[in-house]
Parts: sequence; C-alpha cells; structure tokens
Amino acid sequence: MKKIIAIDLGGTSVKLAIVDPSGQVMDKWSVPTRIHDEGSHIVPDIIASIQERLSAGQMTTADILGIGMGTPGTIDLAAGTVIGAYNLNWKELQPLRQQFTDAFQLPFYFDNDANVAALGEQWQGAGLNHADVVMITIGTGVGGGIVIGGHLVHGAVGAAGEIGHITIDPHLEMPCTCGKKGCLEAVASATGMINLAKMMATTDTMPSELKDRLIRGEVVTAAELFDAAKAGEGFANSVVDRVTHYLGLACSHIANMLNPEYIVLGGGVSHAGAFLLECVQMYMIDYCFSQVRNSTKLVLAQLGNDAGILGAAQLVNLNERGTKA
Amino acid sequence: MKKIIAIDLGGTSVKLAIVDPSGQVMDKWSVPTRIHDEGSHIVPDIIASIQERLSAGQMTTADILGIGMGTPGTIDLAAGTVIGAYNLNWKELQPLRQQFTDAFQLPFYFDNDANVAALGEQWQGAGLNHADVVMITIGTGVGGGIVIGGHLVHGAVGAAGEIGHITIDPHLEMPCTCGKKGCLEAVASATGMINLAKMMATTDTMPSELKDRLIRGEVVTAAELFDAAKAGEGFANSVVDRVTHYLGLACSHIANMLNPEYIVLGGGVSHAGAFLLECVQMYMIDYCFSQVRNSTKLVLAQLGNDAGILGAAQLVNLNERGTKA
Repeated sequence: MKKIIAIDLGGTSVKLAIVDPSGQVMDKWSVPTRIHDEGSHIVPDIIASIQERLSAGQMTTADILGIGMGTPGTIDLAAGTVIGAYNLNWKELQPLRQQFTDAFQLPFYFDNDANVAALGEQWQGAGLNHADVVMITIGTGVGGGIVIGGHLVHGAVGAAGEIGHITIDPHLEMPCTCGKKGCLEAVASATGMINLAKMMATTDTMPSELKDRLIRGEVVTAAELFDAAKAGEGFANSVVDRVTHYLGLACSHIANMLNPEYIVLGGGVSHAGAFLLECVQMYMIDYCFSQVRNSTKLVLAQLGNDAGILGAAQLVNLNERGTKA
Repeated sequence: MKKIIAIDLGGTSVKLAIVDPSGQVMDKWSVPTRIHDEGSHIVPDIIASIQERLSAGQMTTADILGIGMGTPGTIDLAAGTVIGAYNLNWKELQPLRQQFTDAFQLPFYFDNDANVAALGEQWQGAGLNHADVVMITIGTGVGGGIVIGGHLVHGAVGAAGEIGHITIDPHLEMPCTCGKKGCLEAVASATGMINLAKMMATTDTMPSELKDRLIRGEVVTAAELFDAAKAGEGFANSVVDRVTHYLGLACSHIANMLNPEYIVLGGGVSHAGAFLLECVQMYMIDYCFSQVRNSTKLVLAQLGNDAGILGAAQLVNLNERGTKA
C-alpha cells in the first residue's frame, strides 16, 4: 500500500514522517527551520530532505499517496497559499501547493497547525477516531480545531476553531492580542494566566510567597502556578480556580453547542495533567445540560508532538481515500 | 424529475408539501394533528393524506424520490424512532421510519423540527445555500440547528444545536426547564425574557407602566416588551438591552467557534425584526474577533412557516442525491 509523507512545520524545527494510511509511523526525522532570508529556505529545505529520504529508502513518488502538511500562519486553502507566519519570517505570500506539486507531482494538502493537531488527536489520539472531536490547545496562546463528521471545520474565512477568542467574560478588562477584551486566551494561556494572577495579586490579601514574587515583578511560570495550587497554596489555588472556571465554561459552550464525543485538552499547559483536567471538568459538568453532560467527554491529548504529523497524514487520507478510517 | 414529499409535524397541524428537488413547492396542504389516544392517529392520518393527494394528482410512488419529515421529540436517527414529544402525546417510542416505509416503500428521512427548520433556512432561506449556517429559533423556548458543510450536526447523542442551553451567564440564579441555571433560554425565550423583566422590576426604580403591570402580576407578552422598548420606554429598554446582550454574546460564541457564513434568527420573537437584529448585532460585533466580525453575518429568517417543509425536502436531497444544491 502507498505511504503518506507528513510534514509538521514549526518555528524551530520541521518534523517529517512517512506514515502508513492506517496511521502507523514508518519513519520519522526532522530538519531545522532556517528562518533567515524571509524564510525562503524553509520549503526548499523540506523538499530536499524528502527527496533525500525517498532515495535513501529506495522509494519513488510512485510509492507515495500524497503529501500532507501543518503550518503556522493564515492559510488560503483554495489558493494553496500561506501568509503571516511571523515565527517563520513569512511576511510575503508563500505558494506552498505550487512549490510541493512542482517538486513531486503528488497530491498536496495542508492546513493550519492547530487544525492539523486536532485532526491527529481525533484520528489516532484521544478522540479514538470518533466523528466529532474538538481540541483546545493551551500553550503560549489558546488555539483549537473542530472536527465534525471526521472533517475539519473551516468556516466562512477559515477562522473556525479559534476557541481562544471566545468572549469568556464580558466584564474582563484585560486586553487580548486580538484587540478585543474578555477573550479566553487573555486569561487561560500560559501568559494569560500569569497576567490574571498579577491582576489578582493586587487585591488579594492572603499571605503567599507566589503572590509576593508576582508583586516584585519576578518571573513566575504557568507550571509553577499549577504546582503551587496542587500543593495547596491558597493564592495559587484561587488563580487556578478562576482559570479552570473559564476553561470549563468554554468547554461547556463547545459541548452544549456541538455535543462532540470528545473535547481534548492539549498544549504545554496540559502537562498539568489530571489536576487540570479535574478542575476544568468540574466546571464544565456544572454548565452542561444533562444529555450533553452524559455524552461529551473531556480528555487529555495523547499524541504529544506526533499529533501534527498524524493529522497531516490524515489530511491526505481524507482527500485521497475519502475515508475516515 | 421525481418529486419529494415533505412533512412538518406540529402540535396543532401537520404541514405537507410536494417539493421539486430544486426547492420549488409544487403543492402544499395541511391536516390537523389529532393527539388523542396517545397520538396514535397522527402518523396514519399523515399517510392517508399523502396517499389521497398522490391519487388525486394521478401520481404514484414511482414519481417520488423520497419522504422527508421534521418532528418534535427526541429522535433516534439510527433506529428511525422518536419519543417524548409531549405536545403530541407521544409517550411511547414511535417507529416512524417503519411506519412510513411500510406504507410507501420509499426512502424516508427525518430529524427534529428545529434542525429541519435550520436546514430549510440554510438551503432556501436566509442562508442562501452557503455551506455553514447556524439558526437560532427564539419562541416559547430557544432552539437551534447547526449546518456545517451543508449537513446538519447531530453530535454524540443528537444534542448538538441546543443553543438555548448555553450557559450565557454563570451568575444568573434563574432556573431553566432543563434543570440547570444560567441558560440562554431562561432569559431570552418569550417566557424567559418576561421572567427576566419580572426579576428586574423588583429592583428597578424608574417609573414605568409596563413595570407596574408586571409587579401587579398582569400578563405582559414579549411582543409588548419589544414594542415598548422600540417606543423608547426606559424600563422596557433596559430589559431588551439585557436580553439582546445575552443573545449577542451567544451569537458571538457561535461565530468565534464556527465562523459560519450566516447566523439566522428565527421564531416568534424574531417578529421584532430589524430592531431585534440591530440590538443583537451590536453586542455580537463587540464580542467577535476581527476575522469573524468581518465574515459571519447575522440575518433574520426568511421562510417563516415554510422552513420546516423545505428542510424536510432537503433531507431527502442530501441523502438520495448526495448534493447540497
């Protein structure tokens, strides 16, 4: 059976893999992302690396079903282009599909990295290949991807799945990078929750070392915040309670609206693991109506860094084989 | 070309139609919904009426592509059954698909009435046949239907699209019929907004005839509330402002999450028309991030009572012709 070439493009490295259509990773490697010269080396580097790997494995494009890719930036699926991936220095429009089809004469499919990771988790990870799965990625920002009927939802202009910009609290004054107020990302990303902690520190009266450090302007990480809360630190607990309340409310919105089989929590902050999951779930359950409460499950992501390459492979499956399996 | 038989089952009458696959209604009639004897006459009445109409028009089942139907109650698509439609006295499981296929030997498709109306508006109404359209129906309750890629979203157990049970304000103490608090339906349905007005009347200090009537326990309708607000009545305006704030926030959740081409407002309360639309839109725009704000449009439903039969017809199209057109 033909294999799939999967690409997960990140700001520091490009993960590549040869994947069996059933989801088994046959071969996996990576190349550095060289972002100088306006990121103009990135795609040629990827193409050269694939060509080299195919030769080394005595494979030709006849052995390949297609190429799938996840990329940062604003994508235009119809045009086959991407723009505005600032961590790649891609300020100009990148004709991705043209570049890859010129090099390989193979079907090429791509999507933004958050969507591709969601598809990977839906297919081979925590979603257990159920039809309707939503992923929330909590890291530097809060992103997400929505899979309905086994396919990614893009919406009118590709902005679907932007869970981070749900207005989670209309009374919040903290500005989001997107320009509006009250966004989930502004209080629940790794950066956002520390900003929230700083704000809460100015009015909180509990004695707390963590709070004192924030007031003194020292760097406190989201991981430290969760560790302190787990250890029972009062101020940290009140911050984590508020963050997970917001996340639980957002999950309830997804659940009450779409009733997916799974909502998957992923990204760096999800390393807080079972503790995070339980706190978010408690609020989510409160805010879901009974049918949804009993059917939509909240789970942690399972694939880690492999979500991107597996999602990229599934893009090829869905388009070339017309199957969810 | 073969025609479609469309059925929209309601608590007082059943609307029936013969519809061209392109959406043109060729013939339309209705029969009363006889709900006595546990609703056992309803389906036989519908079947007899269709048989009669086909004979009268010198048509046979060979002229028909299939039968589509919208129904109240909790549906089981896989089993082809419905249960718990209390306004029809259907307390026992109704084997709808069995009944219709036994009678006609034709393909039969059905869905719940809110979903079917959403599909009708998406296909032939305000959705202009765009792929991603969400409808919110504001009447006695707040319901909805979500169309993604031209198909209805059902979710894990068919609970998708229950926009009315989004927790729109976690601080609200008003209980919802579903058993939880803070639901959109509890403050934005025709009944809910009057309950909200009563609650606000107890603390509001503005002189207001409408408020006095509420305090005296007189019946005030949602239509009166909107009329008073339109006429500039202060108390009515403060209630409508809060209701439309909640509706605008809910629309922003839909938009930020799914970025549909259209969000369609329908149902009895939508008779408040342009006034309602403008108030809701003002808040929705505030709460959407820029890409979504510029692409997801809020519009009023266009089909009125015909949404149900057109959606029912489209169910047949989607399943038998595999087309969105």
